[in-house]
Amino acid sequence: MSDTLIIGIAGGTGSGKTTITRRLVEAFGDEVTVIYHDNYYKAHFDLTYEERTKLNYDHPDAFDTAMLVSDLQKLKNGEAIDCPVYDYTIHNRSEETLHIEPSRVIIVEGILIYCQKELRDLMDIKLFVDADADVRILRRILRDVKERARSLDSVISQYLTTVKPMHEAFVEPTKRYADIIIPQGGKNQVANDMVIERVRAYLSR
Amino acid sequence: MSDTLIIGIAGGTGSGKTTITRRLVEAFGDEVTVIYHDNYYKAHFDLTYEERTKLNYDHPDAFDTAMLVSDLQKLKNGEAIDCPVYDYTIHNRSEETLHIEPSRVIIVEGILIYCQKELRDLMDIKLFVDADADVRILRRILRDVKERARSLDSVISQYLTTVKPMHEAFVEPTKRYADIIIPQGGKNQVANDMVIERVRAYLSR
Repeated sequence: MSDTLIIGIAGGTGSGKTTITRRLVEAFGDEVTVIYHDNYYKAHFDLTYEERTKLNYDHPDAFDTAMLVSDLQKLKNGEAIDCPVYDYTIHNRSEETLHIEPSRVIIVEGILIYCQKELRDLMDIKLFVDADADVRILRRILRDVKERARSLDSVISQYLTTVKPMHEAFVEPTKRYADIIIPQGGKNQVANDMVIERVRAYLSR
Repeated sequence: MSDTLIIGIAGGTGSGKTTITRRLVEAFGDEVTVIYHDNYYKAHFDLTYEERTKLNYDHPDAFDTAMLVSDLQKLKNGEAIDCPVYDYTIHNRSEETLHIEPSRVIIVEGILIYCQKELRDLMDIKLFVDADADVRILRRILRDVKERARSLDSVISQYLTTVKPMHEAFVEPTKRYADIIIPQGGKNQVANDMVIERVRAYLSR
């Protein structure tokens, strides 16, 4: 038995995944490591920038999930990893890596982390953060327009052409693999407390 | 602040509510009291047996929820209650009552406990146990036919005429009031552990 607790935090765009992750990190500091599935987007040095911008980043095939599985297994075995870093400005894997030492609690965050059995099977607790689609798109608009300086038209167009259909085809169906569904995402203090107490109990053993 | 933790356990018929309740009672014994909304079915001494069998017991109006709210407030205030007992054989409130002493943790179990704001507001943790409708009806059939010696035809007829439409109209919509949704009900060990650790943390304070 490995002495590592691996917690998955999934849910659609704007559901509040990151808020829950942040609360766990605030509560337990260095005892918690966060691994983002997004950092495992496949490298595409074979494609031009133009070609890379046209890829569907909301499809499970966009990720090098086998690499994430292998990295998680190393962390479980007490080995450090050099986690890839994805660079959104070039739509490709960065030359940098992130050195990550093993820790007792590992959070894996991403919208599509429950698509593949190999990855699901590594997780001790699978959370799915849920919110109504209208609330989620409003949060995404605020984030992308205000914080990432994107145009409203481009956010809406991307949402309707890829984000929404991919959510319905691949994210929503994986809700059934969740151990716990957390409605009203990050604002849900009762659920946050419950997850925190579970981790605290694990760490105090 | 009251030193009582009130946990709601809701969910449709056959969802696995009772299994979760049982686990909590096994884990914490006398520190947990279970109150069943079903025991608060309205008394109908004004109606004949025949008339009482025709009432819709899957509708929120079938319950004396104001009485449950009042009883929970008494328990929170450290007062004992005499909980009504519902007698299914006569479709009416029994002459008996159940003397219940205050305890630190109170579980309120029922399919419709999140319909009324007054009752919801008394709860510190609102769980909703969820399962697919086909799995739930199969469990109900097994329970009612095998354990309660009812005919398959009568179970199916009752399910299609009242249980299912009332579920869709009143149970399913209250899922949005839940703090945590537990899929795969009673068999979900990860969710069970999480609820148990939350209660343990409360009791150890």
